[in-house]
Amino acid sequence: MNAEKGRIKTAIVGASGYSGQNLLRLLLTHPRVDLVCATSRAEEGKALDTVFPRFRGAEKLAGLAFSAPDIDAIAATGASCAFLALPHGVAREFAGPLLERGLRVIDLSADFRLRDAAVYADFYGGEHPTPELLAEAVYGLPELRAEEIRGARLVASPGCYPTSILLPLIPLLREKRIDPASICVASGSGVSGAGKKAEAAYLFAEVNESVRAYGAPKHRHLSEIEQELSLAAGGPVRVSFVPHLLPVTAGIATTIFCEPAAGSDPGDPGGVYEAAYGAAPFVRVLGEGRFPDTKHVTGTNFIDIGWVRDARTGRLILFSAEDNLGKGASSQAVQSFNLMHGLPETEGLMIF
Amino acid sequence: MNAEKGRIKTAIVGASGYSGQNLLRLLLTHPRVDLVCATSRAEEGKALDTVFPRFRGAEKLAGLAFSAPDIDAIAATGASCAFLALPHGVAREFAGPLLERGLRVIDLSADFRLRDAAVYADFYGGEHPTPELLAEAVYGLPELRAEEIRGARLVASPGCYPTSILLPLIPLLREKRIDPASICVASGSGVSGAGKKAEAAYLFAEVNESVRAYGAPKHRHLSEIEQELSLAAGGPVRVSFVPHLLPVTAGIATTIFCEPAAGSDPGDPGGVYEAAYGAAPFVRVLGEGRFPDTKHVTGTNFIDIGWVRDARTGRLILFSAEDNLGKGASSQAVQSFNLMHGLPETEGLMIF
Amino acid sequence: MNAEKGRIKTAIVGASGYSGQNLLRLLLTHPRVDLVCATSRAEEGKALDTVFPRFRGAEKLAGLAFSAPDIDAIAATGASCAFLALPHGVAREFAGPLLERGLRVIDLSADFRLRDAAVYADFYGGEHPTPELLAEAVYGLPELRAEEIRGARLVASPGCYPTSILLPLIPLLREKRIDPASICVASGSGVSGAGKKAEAAYLFAEVNESVRAYGAPKHRHLSEIEQELSLAAGGPVRVSFVPHLLPVTAGIATTIFCEPAAGSDPGDPGGVYEAAYGAAPFVRVLGEGRFPDTKHVTGTNFIDIGWVRDARTGRLILFSAEDNLGKGASSQAVQSFNLMHGLPETEGLMIF
Amino acid sequence: MNAEKGRIKTAIVGASGYSGQNLLRLLLTHPRVDLVCATSRAEEGKALDTVFPRFRGAEKLAGLAFSAPDIDAIAATGASCAFLALPHGVAREFAGPLLERGLRVIDLSADFRLRDAAVYADFYGGEHPTPELLAEAVYGLPELRAEEIRGARLVASPGCYPTSILLPLIPLLREKRIDPASICVASGSGVSGAGKKAEAAYLFAEVNESVRAYGAPKHRHLSEIEQELSLAAGGPVRVSFVPHLLPVTAGIATTIFCEPAAGSDPGDPGGVYEAAYGAAPFVRVLGEGRFPDTKHVTGTNFIDIGWVRDARTGRLILFSAEDNLGKGASSQAVQSFNLMHGLPETEGLMIF
Repeated sequence: MNAEKGRIKTAIVGASGYSGQNLLRLLLTHPRVDLVCATSRAEEGKALDTVFPRFRGAEKLAGLAFSAPDIDAIAATGASCAFLALPHGVAREFAGPLLERGLRVIDLSADFRLRDAAVYADFYGGEHPTPELLAEAVYGLPELRAEEIRGARLVASPGCYPTSILLPLIPLLREKRIDPASICVASGSGVSGAGKKAEAAYLFAEVNESVRAYGAPKHRHLSEIEQELSLAAGGPVRVSFVPHLLPVTAGIATTIFCEPAAGSDPGDPGGVYEAAYGAAPFVRVLGEGRFPDTKHVTGTNFIDIGWVRDARTGRLILFSAEDNLGKGASSQAVQSFNLMHGLPETEGLMIF
Repeated sequence: MNAEKGRIKTAIVGASGYSGQNLLRLLLTHPRVDLVCATSRAEEGKALDTVFPRFRGAEKLAGLAFSAPDIDAIAATGASCAFLALPHGVAREFAGPLLERGLRVIDLSADFRLRDAAVYADFYGGEHPTPELLAEAVYGLPELRAEEIRGARLVASPGCYPTSILLPLIPLLREKRIDPASICVASGSGVSGAGKKAEAAYLFAEVNESVRAYGAPKHRHLSEIEQELSLAAGGPVRVSFVPHLLPVTAGIATTIFCEPAAGSDPGDPGGVYEAAYGAAPFVRVLGEGRFPDTKHVTGTNFIDIGWVRDARTGRLILFSAEDNLGKGASSQAVQSFNLMHGLPETEGLMIF
Repeated sequence: MNAEKGRIKTAIVGASGYSGQNLLRLLLTHPRVDLVCATSRAEEGKALDTVFPRFRGAEKLAGLAFSAPDIDAIAATGASCAFLALPHGVAREFAGPLLERGLRVIDLSADFRLRDAAVYADFYGGEHPTPELLAEAVYGLPELRAEEIRGARLVASPGCYPTSILLPLIPLLREKRIDPASICVASGSGVSGAGKKAEAAYLFAEVNESVRAYGAPKHRHLSEIEQELSLAAGGPVRVSFVPHLLPVTAGIATTIFCEPAAGSDPGDPGGVYEAAYGAAPFVRVLGEGRFPDTKHVTGTNFIDIGWVRDARTGRLILFSAEDNLGKGASSQAVQSFNLMHGLPETEGLMIF
Repeated sequence: MNAEKGRIKTAIVGASGYSGQNLLRLLLTHPRVDLVCATSRAEEGKALDTVFPRFRGAEKLAGLAFSAPDIDAIAATGASCAFLALPHGVAREFAGPLLERGLRVIDLSADFRLRDAAVYADFYGGEHPTPELLAEAVYGLPELRAEEIRGARLVASPGCYPTSILLPLIPLLREKRIDPASICVASGSGVSGAGKKAEAAYLFAEVNESVRAYGAPKHRHLSEIEQELSLAAGGPVRVSFVPHLLPVTAGIATTIFCEPAAGSDPGDPGGVYEAAYGAAPFVRVLGEGRFPDTKHVTGTNFIDIGWVRDARTGRLILFSAEDNLGKGASSQAVQSFNLMHGLPETEGLMIF
């Protein structure tokens, strides 16, 4: 654990799950991060490289052990920024107190992604304990809100499915190129998306050689998907969304069916994407007739986007691929971290 | 190779690919089949259980070797029925001559699935050599055309994706419960669907940990899908269809988005399915909110169907799962074989 | 649930794990089995085809629900034979009472595999409650003890690793062809071998793209391996055994290094195997230079055996492949069932 | 393509296979490498990020296209160092001419790994065209020959299986702790080890759910394994070696059985390993009873080593895990590159 000058003292709260582990992996090689604290209730007291043998030999981990998730103890490490990689419903207990103690917070859970406490209650159940923070939190899609993220105290980093759906759709909705009522989304996700919980449904022998839809028609991620699509469209948007569990460890592939806005021809969306993402280092616009493949993005912060125009039905079909633990979670959170600290957006993230 | 009384002398033409192999597997234990001939240009002269070590020890294979795909030689075996498990464009060279020699033919390729030679030319290229057989061939979905199959000389067994799409949709279209213009389909298939060709794209190291769409917007299977949906709807139907390549050996999971017919509420499709499939031994209607899983159908002739009603958007979302090599190919062909020979539809197919 | 004449009323005690599920699968299509009882503490009261959607549509399951594992209730079903697919340490509570009630018992656990209660205590811990049954139980390798199995009241069906190791080695040890002190075994097993317990170590995201040894140097299965090898060799045998966890659902591949017996040349073991297994329907002796592949045996009761002679070191290297849930568990138990009931050894097991 | 001061102009000859691709991946983020040339006969003229969509967005690839593998053209790029990621038998045509033109060469093929041309002919067939280079080439195991590598013109980077076997064994042989005649090795490798050739045997549908030994008893890698073990033991060593093909993309797990040197007790090898590898950044000695797992090393340059002492048989059993494309190929070659250029051994390789 070395504290060099010019490095940002950083904590990971809840570092023993898959998002936390991936965050750790990224911070190990991030040149500007000084990792001062990693908490885990389950692994408290154990050296990080005992729990994660993959990280053995990483200089930054030397001597670092998991601590209990105690708010004052976290603050006492001198961390100026904390990532929360906690379950939904738990993160909300940490964000406020850490902000009060002067830390900036990047939350990977769903707890601060929704602006409307009623929608939160509808999708996640229970009243939100700090609705005022819902108003303050910035929904952390760097491609859309870089400025707000730069100045944010609290970033709500987007969910995995939402990222894969919002980035292809938002530019087209903003430009009124597609009919907001026509959107149907089928996504397939790797099993790490279910977390590291020991449930029989996610055993290898259950998931291997298995493909199945689940969670339709009202998956929790719909709430943030529709919130952001509605903002982009300038009016309420409802979409149909079906996630599928696939036998891969990581990766989300999303396929979106939509129709041109009434009375318009969507034409080639390439121009719209070029305008929206030409300068975005992590959005790779593959072009028409090109199909993103999760294997080209796993382990990275990239999202790949392609599309076809279905002349026979008039529909536009969009495709995206990302790593559910990367652009869909941890590396996107680091991208926000970079913006928040005035670093190049790509710092520590140009990994292939 | 035993020729018992009451057994049907049967040939498999093109038995060395994945469909042929699965057909072999089924016929090995089919109590009424006397396997008299298996052809393979590539494996000519080799014992079947040398090429397929899995089948070593099967009594029916004892002494049987692959022969060349010679039409007169096939007829000379005394076979009264031939399965064609040949590539598209090749099967059409065999069907006519075998019919002329008095055999009944069950073709697993696409060569006789389309009634309209112009559609055939549009999707498969080139003129069809025997358009009169297109008119005669029965599209072999046993759940829909049992009577025609019983009397058929030539059965065109449906494609894998089409089976998974047609069985959930046809009853609803017939009953005018859904809007034929609203259908969007996302399917995911196991890699065996690409056949046993040695192409780098299908190497383990390319497909493993990979998920990707392909073949949109005009996959060849669309031709038969739309032909049959149009027949069911009583008018032309066009659908959007996106297949995906998934890292499983076998299985297809299909997700279908659709809207109620104009001015109607689709209501619970359970009744429609019960009416259509209540007596169909291989269609398992799981019910609302139940998601089919490919792992429950691989190796079998079952197709599982479930659905959800998406109250937020008004859409109906249908799900199916089948084995692309089973109900999507070989076991469905055996189901037709049973009907053609007056056997119980389930003969040799009640495998779990 | 149909009770036909000439059928054997059969119970499965502990039917909700992987061995139990595979046993169910086999009994569903076994022509002489009348399945009258399936117990599961966890799934009590649920229909079998609700718990196992794969089996939906199986005539034999109609109306059958999981019952509690109550000994009197099991006996009251009229079952004359019970398979125990229970965890080690639990099966031993059921075997004696069921025998007392007149049932014959085939136990798939390790509880009755060892003749020596001291070895049992050494490897499994605790005193054996019914050591007299250890003496009575027949270690159920049908290829070696068909006669004893035919007359047995209690069969202890062998473990998965042991089966894959014993069948290649025993004929060579009996014939004094190899040095008993030279045996080193590396086996790789599919994840289903770990059972259906929800442990994080067996999650898909942990096992996928992972290969690792475990359990060395004193895996519990060593006890039965060495017991049977010692019997074959006519003196104590100790072997080194390393199991590996592999990312497949099912299958065990075993590689055995050994040296010729002192002063002898092992020569080609083909003749020894032919003598031992020429009439054994489920042992497929592939020959020298042929490598068994688990994919050719999964789902079946076959074990494939091959070997090479390593001229450079003088060693003989043996290979076997089986399904850990098949010949390594459930189908081998059914093979014993067939022998116990005077049926053809292959009844219901010639599946490919 | 940027040529910064202080960077080493580097070429990859044969960059379209799996080793070449992984080399590319590493050089993309290596701070001291200026990639000036990547050749591929098959992909000549295509942009690198078209062939490898994963690398799209990498600054170093901008504008770089595959060139033909022409020796003068390679030299004309100004490269001072070339990696050869060519098939065996092809690399030997490039090494000499490139050396003559003043480049230093790191060969990932087997062409220069053997000191004895007769052994080369025995294992690889045909006479070696430049036997004098066999004498000059340094077998590039950085943990054993750092000094020689530093000064080498031609490094023969070790094979994947050999690396996983040599690193655990050499320290014990040097210290006479084990009997060189007792060594039996079982290794399992990911499918990428077979290369990117389109062969049916390596299709996903063939490899998935399959485990099998192959290549025994005389795999080509034995030649270099025994060469290096003999050097360490100070006398000829012959080992038994069985590779297995496993359904993972990358990774090798090796299990080694051996016996203590005559009249000695091997004791705990921990001290030997500590002495040998305490300062080696990429050898992680896990300790007794710890089992390396390929998932902790894939994508990295680490090799993990563990062991158990089998008190019951007196054997010592060693375990290692590495990435066959990493420490077993490309990253190990970069490790040599670092040494050859006076860079920190870990430069560009501390990836997790």
